Amino acid sequence: MTTLSPTPRSTVRRLPHRARTDRSELHAVLDAGMVCHLGLVMDGAPVVLPTGYGRIDDVLYLHGSTGAASLRAAARNEPVCVTVTHVDGVVYARSVFHHSMNYRSAVVHGVPRLVTDDAERLAGLRAIVENMSPGSWEHARGPNRKELAATAVLALDLTEASLKVRTGPPLDDDEDVADDVPTGRWSGVLPVRTVFGEPVPCPLLPASTPVAGHVGDRRD
Amino acid sequence: MTTLSPTPRSTVRRLPHRARTDRSELHAVLDAGMVCHLGLVMDGAPVVLPTGYGRIDDVLYLHGSTGAASLRAAARNEPVCVTVTHVDGVVYARSVFHHSMNYRSAVVHGVPRLVTDDAERLAGLRAIVENMSPGSWEHARGPNRKELAATAVLALDLTEASLKVRTGPPLDDDEDVADDVPTGRWSGVLPVRTVFGEPVPCPLLPASTPVAGHVGDRRD
Repeated sequence: MTTLSPTPRSTVRRLPHRARTDRSELHAVLDAGMVCHLGLVMDGAPVVLPTGYGRIDDVLYLHGSTGAASLRAAARNEPVCVTVTHVDGVVYARSVFHHSMNYRSAVVHGVPRLVTDDAERLAGLRAIVENMSPGSWEHARGPNRKELAATAVLALDLTEASLKVRTGPPLDDDEDVADDVPTGRWSGVLPVRTVFGEPVPCPLLPASTPVAGHVGDRRD
Repeated sequence: MTTLSPTPRSTVRRLPHRARTDRSELHAVLDAGMVCHLGLVMDGAPVVLPTGYGRIDDVLYLHGSTGAASLRAAARNEPVCVTVTHVDGVVYARSVFHHSMNYRSAVVHGVPRLVTDDAERLAGLRAIVENMSPGSWEHARGPNRKELAATAVLALDLTEASLKVRTGPPLDDDEDVADDVPTGRWSGVLPVRTVFGEPVPCPLLPASTPVAGHVGDRRD
């Protein structure tokens, strides 16, 4: 089986037909997310925390306060796992056993590198801000020296990654499909998506300030 | 500081004013989710995978194929971390440094227990199915002996858990707020929510089958 990367832990073993091996698909799934789940090992136990991220080519950037225990642990040359998941639908099957979700999920393994080069730190922070709020890097005030000093930036190569995707209708047993008419059971997919609502201005903002285009244009 | 649970790792240290200590709020955040991120340690490295879950009182149930390496690892009396995150808004601040997300995030630590009692296994599976697709347990065909044998059910106590919530407008520096008029920068929150679309019937379903109420009523 072809994989996105050659290591055993980034090779999808469970339901391998759901594995995708196109690197541009991996990028698309990462770029479509706003929050990843960062996994670390702290005192021998796993810790999973939500956090923002950004991507430049085949590098994922993470950031956090230099005071955060999780960031300090991740910067210690120890392995992390970053997972980005989109839920696309609830799959209603004829049997509860075959109930499922449609989803896209990217899993990245690796040892992050603490970014020390000033230009790369800025580029990484920009990628993180722009992934969450495209247009903000130009619109908002940029980071000053003090803010930069308080922020740690980590880089994680996308070398060791896997992508799993489920799409389409339920996959039921033939006997259950044959029972459709007598049982009258419904089966299919309920699509799920994430939408943006009406922007809520900061209460301190002068009332005359128009909603910036890069914000207002995201409304669904 | 009061905590939901008394251990150091379930005490929120970073931005502790965002910590919530009401157990019913923890339950509400868990119940509002469909997918958790399950963290395990495998071969010394963290692995984070999305999976369904359900809750009964102060127990979280997880399930999976008895053939899945992650479930086997989680059933080995080893610690896991389960995180459920809702993104509620993108917080646009005057500075990129204060950009943030509004979110609710529950983090549960513990060593899961492999459920062996038949009644608890069924109750756990029911909780998982009903959390993802309320009403399906009654509507769809229940699990048969073979399906039950292929499914492992794990129970994780909610004893050691933390809940972190951010709400409200951006928190900017006074100097940046004072610059509002000259800069014309917009600041505020873009709400984010998850919605359900129009149900898509299984292509094999007879066209006359009406959409079941427990599915159709979820549409936004």
